[in-house]
Amino acid sequence: MDIFKKALDLHLAVRGKLSVENRVNVQSKEDLSLVYSPGVAAPCEAIHANPATVYDYTIKGNTVAIVSDGSAVLGLGNIGALASIPVMEGKAMLFKRFAGINGFPICLQTQDTDEIINIVKNLAPVFGGVNLEDISAPRCFEIEERLQDIGIPVFHDDQHGTAIVVLAALMNFCKVTGRKISDLRIVINGAGAAGVAISRYLGKHDPETPNQEIAREIIVCDSHGIISAEREDLTDIKKELLSYTNPHNLTGTVFDALPGSDVFIGVSKANLLNRGHIQTMAADPLILALANPIPEILPEEAYAGGAFVVGTGRSDFPNQVNNVLAFPGIFLGALRTRSPRITLAMKFAAASAIANGIKNPTRDQIIPPVMDESIAHLVADAVAAFSTT
Amino acid sequence: MDIFKKALDLHLAVRGKLSVENRVNVQSKEDLSLVYSPGVAAPCEAIHANPATVYDYTIKGNTVAIVSDGSAVLGLGNIGALASIPVMEGKAMLFKRFAGINGFPICLQTQDTDEIINIVKNLAPVFGGVNLEDISAPRCFEIEERLQDIGIPVFHDDQHGTAIVVLAALMNFCKVTGRKISDLRIVINGAGAAGVAISRYLGKHDPETPNQEIAREIIVCDSHGIISAEREDLTDIKKELLSYTNPHNLTGTVFDALPGSDVFIGVSKANLLNRGHIQTMAADPLILALANPIPEILPEEAYAGGAFVVGTGRSDFPNQVNNVLAFPGIFLGALRTRSPRITLAMKFAAASAIANGIKNPTRDQIIPPVMDESIAHLVADAVAAFSTT
Repeated sequence: MDIFKKALDLHLAVRGKLSVENRVNVQSKEDLSLVYSPGVAAPCEAIHANPATVYDYTIKGNTVAIVSDGSAVLGLGNIGALASIPVMEGKAMLFKRFAGINGFPICLQTQDTDEIINIVKNLAPVFGGVNLEDISAPRCFEIEERLQDIGIPVFHDDQHGTAIVVLAALMNFCKVTGRKISDLRIVINGAGAAGVAISRYLGKHDPETPNQEIAREIIVCDSHGIISAEREDLTDIKKELLSYTNPHNLTGTVFDALPGSDVFIGVSKANLLNRGHIQTMAADPLILALANPIPEILPEEAYAGGAFVVGTGRSDFPNQVNNVLAFPGIFLGALRTRSPRITLAMKFAAASAIANGIKNPTRDQIIPPVMDESIAHLVADAVAAFSTT
Repeated sequence: MDIFKKALDLHLAVRGKLSVENRVNVQSKEDLSLVYSPGVAAPCEAIHANPATVYDYTIKGNTVAIVSDGSAVLGLGNIGALASIPVMEGKAMLFKRFAGINGFPICLQTQDTDEIINIVKNLAPVFGGVNLEDISAPRCFEIEERLQDIGIPVFHDDQHGTAIVVLAALMNFCKVTGRKISDLRIVINGAGAAGVAISRYLGKHDPETPNQEIAREIIVCDSHGIISAEREDLTDIKKELLSYTNPHNLTGTVFDALPGSDVFIGVSKANLLNRGHIQTMAADPLILALANPIPEILPEEAYAGGAFVVGTGRSDFPNQVNNVLAFPGIFLGALRTRSPRITLAMKFAAASAIANGIKNPTRDQIIPPVMDESIAHLVADAVAAFSTT
């Protein structure tokens, strides 16, 4: 039976993958009077007197909203809030499974940027953090940015989750090959949420991020080709990329960008490349072909073209680049320290922790396997150490 | 140890009374691919093609938002969203405990009526119903009313939960004493959420509610006395009461309203009445003294004044009037039938079911005990039978 049929049957069998459960038994009238009226007045008054104690008396400190408007769901596009619910439930499951965090799906009917921002602000009291999910670019950038000062961390996983795991893979690629990120010429194909975040991490110097390394040269391509100063169709976000990518103002297609590059990162579309394209790159390149479910190039073909390491988003090949390695531990570390935001330094600390989760990385195990339960806790410790208050 | 100290300790020990748990194990990469990417695309696509199937593939059909702005919490007043969280968590626990429903606390930072309405509308996709809670009058009336057409039931429990259980007590009081609701002269003291709802149930004829019985005469009092046409300080909601209460345009205080009455319903303040006041009433009256934690009159004092049946909100006296008898079963019935709203006919069916939950009601057991697990299911069946689509 194919995986989609199997998944549909499973969803129908359970009718909801989450359950909100009680952590205290209510068997007697006295139990009732402790968890509810009248006893519950005591923690209410304590929080009213000292708002910081909300972390002591409620679920807030261990609860994350998974917020989507259903505008960019998986590879399915703008399918809307209702149809996005199964994904957000799945995401919540991963929060619980890997970090013990309560995730709850918040699937918003509106796709208006201002409304989404206003709603998330107003939902903040009961949540310790907000994971934005599957919100289309460029709205996702503005929404995340304008929510940075609401007092709890707001993190758009499609940007940062992917970028952090990519960075971890790059770190270990460097370790295995004796290179440094600052030596690398990197082609990024795709300038949506993930592509832009990866470009920023590797190219945009952040003075508050001591653990950042800037790549030698980054070329970003979108569906119209290399993002260059010659382009007249660039959004503000893509214009910003020009200040730290494409220093020689190269023009043309992704195939014009590839020759001589050390790294290809695809967050774009199926079957873009063949072995001939890989052969034009520098010796022993890293290929991260992350289009899902069908990557930009299959591992076998990439290796045939001379790739040294190949990663994909797929679970049936080695080197699965999946943000489940990142977000559970990142929120765990941020919640533990009650950090009001997740800074770039914390994200880089997460990437290092993921990279170091493999003691001796190899071509076939450049990053830890997604089911490795230790990673979230390593990431949480690293993130907590860089936490800001 | 007093109950408040005990409750505070319990809350501190658990740090959150709810847990979002997974209903499917994720042990292998294959599990991951079924509950999340790529398999999850199958239910997403199914819902996108046919939105009604969201009830088959997600938590929606068994999940209720417990929405508050913290403006009227218990007896504590306007303590805000953060401090209201322990109550909303407790409410969620009761949904699970008595009806197996997932309740999730949504505690909103804003107290603006339009904003609250807009947020609830936009949150609707993932929820099968909305329980409004602890929102101050008169905003609670407008908010509930303007949310009646969002496609899922929206129910303000402070109005209806209390009114339904009061109605159940009235029904059984009539049964025990051989009277009819249409024979009763009723004084309601308190014109907030609960007082207004009780008045509407008993006085405002609804042609779509075949199971409604209208009381002979209702007098409603607020903190300024009897609500009469002479009053110049009435809100719109209180003006509406004039059209079906106080037919003889009585003026004065609650003590002027009591003489000759069969029923006193207090949703007001502690220690309002003494036995002398009860003695002015008609023979063998029903006293529901629901102020919490200290009732308008203690049962012993009311009985000394000639009361036939006394109910309070307290768990340490017989006849506890508590809306936990109502809301779990009401939502269970509405969710089961996917009713888009909870009509007055459904609310009256719930009251009958609660009343009938005691086979042979007596003075000391006029309504079922709050821990009676059968009630929610009896209520759900009755509500489902009157469900609208």
